[in-house]
Amino acid sequence: MNTKTPPYRPPFPGPEGQEDMPYLLTPGPLTTSRTVKLAMLADWGSRDVEFRKIVGDIRKRILQLANCDSSYECVIMQGSGTFAIEAALGSLCPGKRRKTLVVANGAYGDRAAQILERIGRPYLKIDKGDSAVPTVDEVVTMLDADRAISHVWMVHCETTSGIVNPIEEIGQAIKLHDKVFMVDAMSSFGALPLHMVALNMDVMVSSSNKCLEGVPGFSYVVLKRDLLEASAGANHSLVLDLFDQWRGLEANGQFRFTPPTHALVAFDQALKEHEQQGGVEGRGLRYQRNAQALVAGMHEIGFSTLLDEGISGPIIQTFLTPSDPSFRFEKFYEALRVRGFTIYPGKLTKRPSFRIGTIGQIDEQVIAAALQAVRDVLGEMGVKDFTPLEN
Amino acid sequence: MNTKTPPYRPPFPGPEGQEDMPYLLTPGPLTTSRTVKLAMLADWGSRDVEFRKIVGDIRKRILQLANCDSSYECVIMQGSGTFAIEAALGSLCPGKRRKTLVVANGAYGDRAAQILERIGRPYLKIDKGDSAVPTVDEVVTMLDADRAISHVWMVHCETTSGIVNPIEEIGQAIKLHDKVFMVDAMSSFGALPLHMVALNMDVMVSSSNKCLEGVPGFSYVVLKRDLLEASAGANHSLVLDLFDQWRGLEANGQFRFTPPTHALVAFDQALKEHEQQGGVEGRGLRYQRNAQALVAGMHEIGFSTLLDEGISGPIIQTFLTPSDPSFRFEKFYEALRVRGFTIYPGKLTKRPSFRIGTIGQIDEQVIAAALQAVRDVLGEMGVKDFTPLEN
Repeated sequence: MNTKTPPYRPPFPGPEGQEDMPYLLTPGPLTTSRTVKLAMLADWGSRDVEFRKIVGDIRKRILQLANCDSSYECVIMQGSGTFAIEAALGSLCPGKRRKTLVVANGAYGDRAAQILERIGRPYLKIDKGDSAVPTVDEVVTMLDADRAISHVWMVHCETTSGIVNPIEEIGQAIKLHDKVFMVDAMSSFGALPLHMVALNMDVMVSSSNKCLEGVPGFSYVVLKRDLLEASAGANHSLVLDLFDQWRGLEANGQFRFTPPTHALVAFDQALKEHEQQGGVEGRGLRYQRNAQALVAGMHEIGFSTLLDEGISGPIIQTFLTPSDPSFRFEKFYEALRVRGFTIYPGKLTKRPSFRIGTIGQIDEQVIAAALQAVRDVLGEMGVKDFTPLEN
Repeated sequence: MNTKTPPYRPPFPGPEGQEDMPYLLTPGPLTTSRTVKLAMLADWGSRDVEFRKIVGDIRKRILQLANCDSSYECVIMQGSGTFAIEAALGSLCPGKRRKTLVVANGAYGDRAAQILERIGRPYLKIDKGDSAVPTVDEVVTMLDADRAISHVWMVHCETTSGIVNPIEEIGQAIKLHDKVFMVDAMSSFGALPLHMVALNMDVMVSSSNKCLEGVPGFSYVVLKRDLLEASAGANHSLVLDLFDQWRGLEANGQFRFTPPTHALVAFDQALKEHEQQGGVEGRGLRYQRNAQALVAGMHEIGFSTLLDEGISGPIIQTFLTPSDPSFRFEKFYEALRVRGFTIYPGKLTKRPSFRIGTIGQIDEQVIAAALQAVRDVLGEMGVKDFTPLEN
């Protein structure tokens, strides 16, 4: 069932038997470069001086990429991005009398609220559904209505729809109200500019396997040192405690608990390639070209996008499911996958949809090949009516 | 400073610039085979059918290796081994009226107690110091003295000293008292036999980067399904919740949160190699040969071991620091490391010591080369008096 002929074959053939791994057009894990993966062909001692230097370098470079000054720290956490989110919420969000405001417009905002619920931290939520943009007015109204709100949590790019939220404008209002400003930059960091000092942002969370194009295995929290220091003993968990994790890293450059050594060394290589490829600007431009080529091609085929161009961002695109009865998502997904392209199901609560990611080690040629595969598969399926299916 | 001549050079040279990575003679991360690392040269979609099959296979094979029947489940958790330990303690240990008894003889028993303390679960501790063996009588005395004890936590191989605890005898007593029997088999699983049904063991925790010789990135809990089902909503954390994690894996074979795809695919390969190399028996015999060769050689040089041969096990060996003033551990460590052998510092609270691991993708030839490096370094340092240093 494998189609080994170009343009479907990935440029980085794996070892024998794995030559045909698909391009991952998803919100992550992503396609990484061959050189990033090659960095994993060695075993590193987690206590060794070279490894500790790599960890220190990674922490420094994350701070630089987030445009931090010396008042910020970077704490790496084992596990997926959600582990760092729970670590940040558990170490920093207040437990009583004061509250956290969660600004949600999708599954990842909702998840932050679920975590606060589980760990027993009071919160309020602005719920904009699946794809509406939260406004400064809405946030300010909430802050004025409940003076117990001390912290605000927002998602930068909400991959439920792909929307990019206006953290600059809302962040400014949050800081005017003197609240702790916390951002989930999971799927934007490294491709969309983030200036923590200029935005007066207190906390940012992201992971290894998104726009910086490392492999999955860890996540990180960038935050003001005074908040970190004040958080000693506050976390509900031992392993997720940011303060303890930071103290360990600062004391001797070692993790308290076994780090994912291979993923960290791969990330070190990924950061070098990020810089060589023009940093945040270069990465963002490539993703923008990918997104524009994808949306233009899908429109040409007949698909409708959920979001207007102005708010959709370059990370992941949501397409509305065609009402043609011959379109079946799982069949479409699998037929694309065996052609070398893994797409992603939709996550909207209201409308049938699917998503195609435009991040990772891919470019417009990959997008062009993916579009050709989409056309081929739709032809095989006999899909003609692209009117979006209503719920 | 690299010595590229045999016997110091690893048999699996890495990519350019990384040819001289040392052998990791530690409690982990360990030296893995080249083929295990090569499995990481591909990016897998976490939602794809092949990847989900690999995850399902891994869970099945872990259950088989632990000699489970159909009443057990395997839940994989992102993060290091301690993440699975906190997940198990948080999902399963009682929160009020009842208590957990922690049988400790080293840092890893102590850590379980620290976690229970942090998450507010009542516990008692039997503290045997750094290296004494807990007895059935001591455990039974505690169980009889406090009928509120419902759960008992023990470490199989405590890598603080390398001691292998008598989980069979103590487990039998625990089950006669009808308590939940939980074992940290982190550094023994895959090399020392573990028969969960025969021992009536309820819970076992281990990780990817120990005796099964995968890379670090995840851990797992094997436990009775009825305990897992009864744990819904009990965990203090969202990401560490075993029940939720299990429901996700069972529902569609996918993780709730991004899994470390490369580490999982490497583990799949590591499990195949474990089987090819004779399973638990073969692995245990190789480690025993490593340990015997190491201890014999170190004794010949003049070092003393902390433990008697009968209780020291084949995982990691603790050597007492020589009192010769020319012996400096950090210098010894670094000189061995640049020769290709990473050893490990001691963790005893009472006596100066260091440790050398005998697990991972190493054999007696590696041990012989390591011993030669030890002799060379001691000669350079001018160490002559091996009388153990007292505190």
